[in-house]
Amino acid sequence: MSRKYFTKATDIAKRIVEERVKEGDIVIDATIGNGYDTVFLAKLVGKTGKVYGFDIQSKAIENTKAKLIESTLTERVILIKDSHENIDRYVKEKIDLVIFNLGYLPGGDHEITTKPNSTIKALKKSLDILKENGIIVLVIYHGHEMGKIEKNIIEQYVRELNQKKYTVIKFEFINQINNPPLIIAIEKNL
Amino acid sequence: MSRKYFTKATDIAKRIVEERVKEGDIVIDATIGNGYDTVFLAKLVGKTGKVYGFDIQSKAIENTKAKLIESTLTERVILIKDSHENIDRYVKEKIDLVIFNLGYLPGGDHEITTKPNSTIKALKKSLDILKENGIIVLVIYHGHEMGKIEKNIIEQYVRELNQKKYTVIKFEFINQINNPPLIIAIEKNL
Repeated sequence: MSRKYFTKATDIAKRIVEERVKEGDIVIDATIGNGYDTVFLAKLVGKTGKVYGFDIQSKAIENTKAKLIESTLTERVILIKDSHENIDRYVKEKIDLVIFNLGYLPGGDHEITTKPNSTIKALKKSLDILKENGIIVLVIYHGHEMGKIEKNIIEQYVRELNQKKYTVIKFEFINQINNPPLIIAIEKNL
Repeated sequence: MSRKYFTKATDIAKRIVEERVKEGDIVIDATIGNGYDTVFLAKLVGKTGKVYGFDIQSKAIENTKAKLIESTLTERVILIKDSHENIDRYVKEKIDLVIFNLGYLPGGDHEITTKPNSTIKALKKSLDILKENGIIVLVIYHGHEMGKIEKNIIEQYVRELNQKKYTVIKFEFINQINNPPLIIAIEKNL
């Protein structure tokens, strides 16, 4: 046992994504931020796959576009400067995976955060277009004020999801004092 | 995405064990029950590894012994008919992994359950003899009365573990009505 197994919450999210997304998949990055996950997803879906990336901030779109050009991955990614609550306006096909990195843009304006209302709307629409065995991963930062509210509203919502239709699992680091992000993953059952 | 990814709590525990235990490891099955995990562990540690198995019930020891004989794995397993709270009397070496399947013996007397007090004692002693990067996995059944109490006491205890020394993660299926077991995993940091 040489290397650490339980690293951090974001690595758990990344591991789930890595184990599930395969060549040809169609996936959504609901909050592209600085584009790290978008690039990661674009590599995983390969030439035959597709990534839809959403963000309301121009800075996020620009940063992500730059990273995609650098990695010559632009062809398989559709960047959309709109709220993820409007996913259904842009995505007209069934989806294998959706990832939400909630909160604010790292290095951006911390006052501009995802909001519980639009997050729940986006989550509902994501569930509608999710394929069977498809997965939604939520990385929830609840250290800031709006994040706490968002965390509670999301948890309340997903706890009510019909267990025959969905499996909802929560991953939480419970002995850390600095409110590490928690992960909620939802799988649509067969 | 053909097969289900998030199956059930016990599969998550099994996946952690499978990903961590390797040939030559020394591990503890703190609650052998009917011996399924003991056999699983004995296979993973290989000819050069060792499994210590604890249970207070003769029936558990007998059932496990029978399974081990059948799989010709007896040589690498030491079965001990005593409470896991006395781990330190029998185990005098550093350990790679400990698994606790709490609650009662499936198919046995449901009145005979693990008790919070001895579970915490066993957990403390396990932490003491755990190698760096070693892992403790607790499968906590909290559907029965004593299980609820046990769950709360364990959670309270592990939340207080120093985050520099240990990483504690909780895996919970949060949309199921029948109190599915929850998993707590503890890794000893480097």
